Amino acid sequence: MNLAILTANDAIGDDRFRLTDARADHIRSVLKLTAGDSVEVGLLDGPQGTAKIESCDDQGVVIFADSLENAPLPAPTVDIICALPRPQTLKKILLTSAMMGVRRLYLVRANRVEKSYYQSPLLQPENYRPYLLEGLSQGKLTRMPQVTIHDRFRVFFEDTLKTLYNAADSAEPRMLLPDSESSASLSDVVSGEKVETTTLVVGIGPEGGWVPFEVELMEGIGFRPFSLGRWTLRVEHAVTAVLSQLELLRMNSCRAAPS
Amino acid sequence: MNLAILTANDAIGDDRFRLTDARADHIRSVLKLTAGDSVEVGLLDGPQGTAKIESCDDQGVVIFADSLENAPLPAPTVDIICALPRPQTLKKILLTSAMMGVRRLYLVRANRVEKSYYQSPLLQPENYRPYLLEGLSQGKLTRMPQVTIHDRFRVFFEDTLKTLYNAADSAEPRMLLPDSESSASLSDVVSGEKVETTTLVVGIGPEGGWVPFEVELMEGIGFRPFSLGRWTLRVEHAVTAVLSQLELLRMNSCRAAPS
Repeated sequence: MNLAILTANDAIGDDRFRLTDARADHIRSVLKLTAGDSVEVGLLDGPQGTAKIESCDDQGVVIFADSLENAPLPAPTVDIICALPRPQTLKKILLTSAMMGVRRLYLVRANRVEKSYYQSPLLQPENYRPYLLEGLSQGKLTRMPQVTIHDRFRVFFEDTLKTLYNAADSAEPRMLLPDSESSASLSDVVSGEKVETTTLVVGIGPEGGWVPFEVELMEGIGFRPFSLGRWTLRVEHAVTAVLSQLELLRMNSCRAAPS
Repeated sequence: MNLAILTANDAIGDDRFRLTDARADHIRSVLKLTAGDSVEVGLLDGPQGTAKIESCDDQGVVIFADSLENAPLPAPTVDIICALPRPQTLKKILLTSAMMGVRRLYLVRANRVEKSYYQSPLLQPENYRPYLLEGLSQGKLTRMPQVTIHDRFRVFFEDTLKTLYNAADSAEPRMLLPDSESSASLSDVVSGEKVETTTLVVGIGPEGGWVPFEVELMEGIGFRPFSLGRWTLRVEHAVTAVLSQLELLRMNSCRAAPS
């Protein structure tokens, strides 16, 4: 836990929050903090910073957080489309998405997605939310990714996607399709653009990959294929890989910009 | 299983291999292959390619592999130093290292490594080898990373490391130290070098990071700090992130080189 994420449910008024769960245990037993000590906290979808522990006992940990500051939103804006994976993989993707600052996570139907995955209890918000909170706490971020579930492939790509971006974003998003057969690198498909100011939408396929019909449809609406590397990665590693490579481009882009 | 890894134990002579374990189950039940079909195989630490299934029954799967070709060794040459993590994390790092083509994995003592981790049964080769094989099979590689375990921090960095690279490599390796406080990106610390032809050694710290004494010692012998990005990553994600970013630099370097 690098950041204790505080939610409205923890609030007890006057900038005070009472924790009684694993976060309190972590503060007491792992960080070994006590009354008077400082602790790094963040308000869910809000500011973050250093807060003071007012009391720390069997009743829980009371935190006084009156001087948090708004953290800048992560840039670039990255949205991930992920063919709905099996639950054990989804847990990892939820954590990684939150930890690495993904804005939206779309879980979509694909030919190679097993229908049973749509019955998983993990798709209920109360069940997947803990993995997002754990990711925020690890990555020291407070903005929770917005997770949506889509059970019709064609409707999602032909209708939903268009509606989402026309409504929400002024600029066209840049749509990217990891494809181990492509000879392009990520730099090739986002070159010449300010990576920090463009919305990027990345379509990660299921185990076994998208089928040809799916690739054709995605390329037809503007997804650009590129290769993450020579290896064949698991879905959860592909998510980490693409976010890591985008971050390298962002760092280099900031460096190149006039100060 | 993207590649069935065949070992000397599977050989039954005349380019034939009999599989009776999970690999055989996978070929029969998941890939649904039968006698006469082709299957992608690789010999451990050897060539890989397409082989023929000769028989496929309750006695196992017999594969005839007489036309495998030597795959090029992965480049760049990347060696990972990893502060010995807890066993659950180590399993992920073993898999990732094999999947993404790491040459050597050094597991080292650090101040924030719990001593009990050195007692884990997972440190026995027969126990960690399955995770390496699974990684090779996923990444479609055949060269197994060489894993070594070092229980004295100072001896490893001051003596062992020097001996290893003086003996084995003609050129000085480039030593890299991920550090979220650094303002340098990976491109800054490997710029001007042919990333494909340089040996890279990356020092990944424990949960909680290297302590100042450790960082000073590593920087003193030539480790260069750089940042993987703004997030605070878990150890297993840091390994994936650094290998992904190196791969992007390699792809772009190949592109820039005269053909």
